Amino acid sequence: MEEITGVIDYGYTPYSEFKNNVEKVVKIKGVIHNIREMSDFAFILIRTARELIQCVYSPEFSEFRLNENIVEQASAKITGKVVKSETRDGSERYELQIHDIEIISSPAAIPPVVISKKQVTCDLSVNLDNRPVTLRNPKERAIFKIQEGIQRGFREYLQSQNFTEIHSPKINFAGAEGGTNVFKLDYFGKTVYLAQSPQLYKQALVPVFERVFEIAPVFRAEHHDTSRHLNEYISMDFEMGFIESFTDIMNMETGALKYIMNLLKTEYTPEVELLKVDIPEITSIPCIRFKDAKELCVKKLKNITDMKDFEPEEEAFLGKWAKQQFNSDFLFVTHYLSKKRPFYTMDDPEDPEVTLSFDLLFRGLEITSGGQRIHDYNEQVAKMKKMGMNPDEFETYLMLHKYGAPPHGGLGLGLERLTMHLLGFKNVRNATMFPRDINRVSP
Amino acid sequence: MEEITGVIDYGYTPYSEFKNNVEKVVKIKGVIHNIREMSDFAFILIRTARELIQCVYSPEFSEFRLNENIVEQASAKITGKVVKSETRDGSERYELQIHDIEIISSPAAIPPVVISKKQVTCDLSVNLDNRPVTLRNPKERAIFKIQEGIQRGFREYLQSQNFTEIHSPKINFAGAEGGTNVFKLDYFGKTVYLAQSPQLYKQALVPVFERVFEIAPVFRAEHHDTSRHLNEYISMDFEMGFIESFTDIMNMETGALKYIMNLLKTEYTPEVELLKVDIPEITSIPCIRFKDAKELCVKKLKNITDMKDFEPEEEAFLGKWAKQQFNSDFLFVTHYLSKKRPFYTMDDPEDPEVTLSFDLLFRGLEITSGGQRIHDYNEQVAKMKKMGMNPDEFETYLMLHKYGAPPHGGLGLGLERLTMHLLGFKNVRNATMFPRDINRVSP
Repeated sequence: MEEITGVIDYGYTPYSEFKNNVEKVVKIKGVIHNIREMSDFAFILIRTARELIQCVYSPEFSEFRLNENIVEQASAKITGKVVKSETRDGSERYELQIHDIEIISSPAAIPPVVISKKQVTCDLSVNLDNRPVTLRNPKERAIFKIQEGIQRGFREYLQSQNFTEIHSPKINFAGAEGGTNVFKLDYFGKTVYLAQSPQLYKQALVPVFERVFEIAPVFRAEHHDTSRHLNEYISMDFEMGFIESFTDIMNMETGALKYIMNLLKTEYTPEVELLKVDIPEITSIPCIRFKDAKELCVKKLKNITDMKDFEPEEEAFLGKWAKQQFNSDFLFVTHYLSKKRPFYTMDDPEDPEVTLSFDLLFRGLEITSGGQRIHDYNEQVAKMKKMGMNPDEFETYLMLHKYGAPPHGGLGLGLERLTMHLLGFKNVRNATMFPRDINRVSP
Repeated sequence: MEEITGVIDYGYTPYSEFKNNVEKVVKIKGVIHNIREMSDFAFILIRTARELIQCVYSPEFSEFRLNENIVEQASAKITGKVVKSETRDGSERYELQIHDIEIISSPAAIPPVVISKKQVTCDLSVNLDNRPVTLRNPKERAIFKIQEGIQRGFREYLQSQNFTEIHSPKINFAGAEGGTNVFKLDYFGKTVYLAQSPQLYKQALVPVFERVFEIAPVFRAEHHDTSRHLNEYISMDFEMGFIESFTDIMNMETGALKYIMNLLKTEYTPEVELLKVDIPEITSIPCIRFKDAKELCVKKLKNITDMKDFEPEEEAFLGKWAKQQFNSDFLFVTHYLSKKRPFYTMDDPEDPEVTLSFDLLFRGLEITSGGQRIHDYNEQVAKMKKMGMNPDEFETYLMLHKYGAPPHGGLGLGLERLTMHLLGFKNVRNATMFPRDINRVSP
């Protein structure tokens, strides 16, 4: 009987080890990404998990001849000699002189979209229709490696701050925040809802773990089709107890963002360089009250009619203003109007017209909403009634307050939107592997 | 204008620092978990994020009197002097002589279930009905801290093996593996489905990242109500390319399990001790073919009628057998029958009646299904047709094969089920924060 020990050793040499194997024969594996045939030799680019490795075919040292099985998108094992290659900028690069190649899997057709060039240049909709193929392009996949880095940084920082990772249910008996933008589901004859946010669950877990976070899908049945909204996206949420001010939440987010940006710089260098990502420097983040920000906008922009919220052009203006005034890519806007924030938001005791809440703008785009929550039972029930809600429908939610909760608050951060804006895309679909919008549920 | 620097310092002393602060006055915060009044003093247990801290009230050193605001589930800030306390077993313990207490949040009612004792003793259904309260009990919450450790270990190990973390969409245009157990959703007038598994997406990403994993909810509309099934659960999935045998997948899982168990021992000691978790020792995991395992069962158990799969009692028997024969808590069963495995499973070239697949039994319970997938386009299309499926309905899935995929395979591991069995529960709901079953979508 066989025993499984947990050890796998294929004996492949990763590209990072090429520098220690110059003039030696090594074994690699990967997908043939691109073949360029010259008069008497050929370049064969091999796509590995994170790099492209340049291999050189030549009858001089290759023990086989190019043939119809050696095609792009075939998977191969290759042996060859590592050589230092010449680069124009003098940087160190290594390539492989192929001795032998073994094709272990062959495609049945040529990709419908060109993916072996530097960039996928087709229309976004064609790109998205062919996602299982287009994501193979190194620049496309680098977007999602960066995205991994962002969520990994969020998680690692919060773990270091004693947060517990949770998984809250996505099938709920009620829409989290009420409203009409919820997907309905037939659940064994009952109507239930897909979670719009983990809000009520993460709050419920504050008296349990004190600090919690979740990185998980949320679902919003928004009917409009814009470049910055998705109907399903990954929300990075946290909630923390025993806060002394709602600025504690902003401090926690600032710490997380610093950590994330540093992680990208240090652990995601190949992708940061490939995509020429302009990583923001964060020392501290300035704050402005909603009222004051609105005044600035009214002074500088024309035709502002909605005095209760910001239009995208106002956010963009505030972003530029923060850059000019404070040399900051980020700006916290605080104290949003009470009537524009959800029922669980705590009003400012010094001015109940406004709330202890904030949005974070990143280069002029809102990426976070957060704030302090009501923890007192009677205060929460009173606010629900004032807003025309029936507290009886929130009985299990109100267990949090009824049986005691410390002062707390938290925030939510859309992963795809942050990725989009960091990478300078105009459409969030560019930063979504398999986007779901009003017209798209496939692939 | 205020600036947010990312630094928070409340000046609290965590329990882990008590040993360095004996006879010093420190500040702590937490929820009053339990109050035991004696004739001339009182014990006040303070619940912090991971520990209970024993505090002592006495008119001798306390600058306040017990009153109606000092109640269980109130949140408090406390100052006091750290003292070494006497323990029967001679272990080091510290407690706090309370000087002063500040109540910062008060409950509105007494909990409907007793949570301040060592254990929550009510019926499971009452426990689940009151989850926002019962999870506050240290033993209840420890279950989910262990659960966090399991998924954290899975993630950390795979990251160390160069896997990329992905998030696949949960709203799909087709049920992943076909079948009837899918939840249907009205999506702007179209019928769509909730993901039963990330199977098709994680496979699609193998030619992109080579190795991928996901920890996310999956949804199964199973009509039966059993102690080991949920309608929504967290699936830990991975998929890896360039495998040379399906045993590579088993090796990767074995490595992950070793890492997880070690992480629990080292980083989750308080919870492991509180719940007296019997952590399995893993050196290597034995394997047995399905056919041979079935023969063993037929020899030892009565009334076996289904020769194509195992009943729970057969799995239990095999678990005991593995323990006796190999002193192993785990057993891989391999080469399941082709007709019992999904359409993407690779048949064994040496015997097409069976597949290159496996289940992992842990102490007699199946916790994983995995195997090698078909990577060749024509082979996959042929198998679909043989199984009566229409390949045209899987056009985007088949892009993977059509445009080239390396040999690959992977597995799925149910987080709640593994937690349940590790902790010795009979019902998976004990290991689920907010379970969803045919009768329960709340809280």
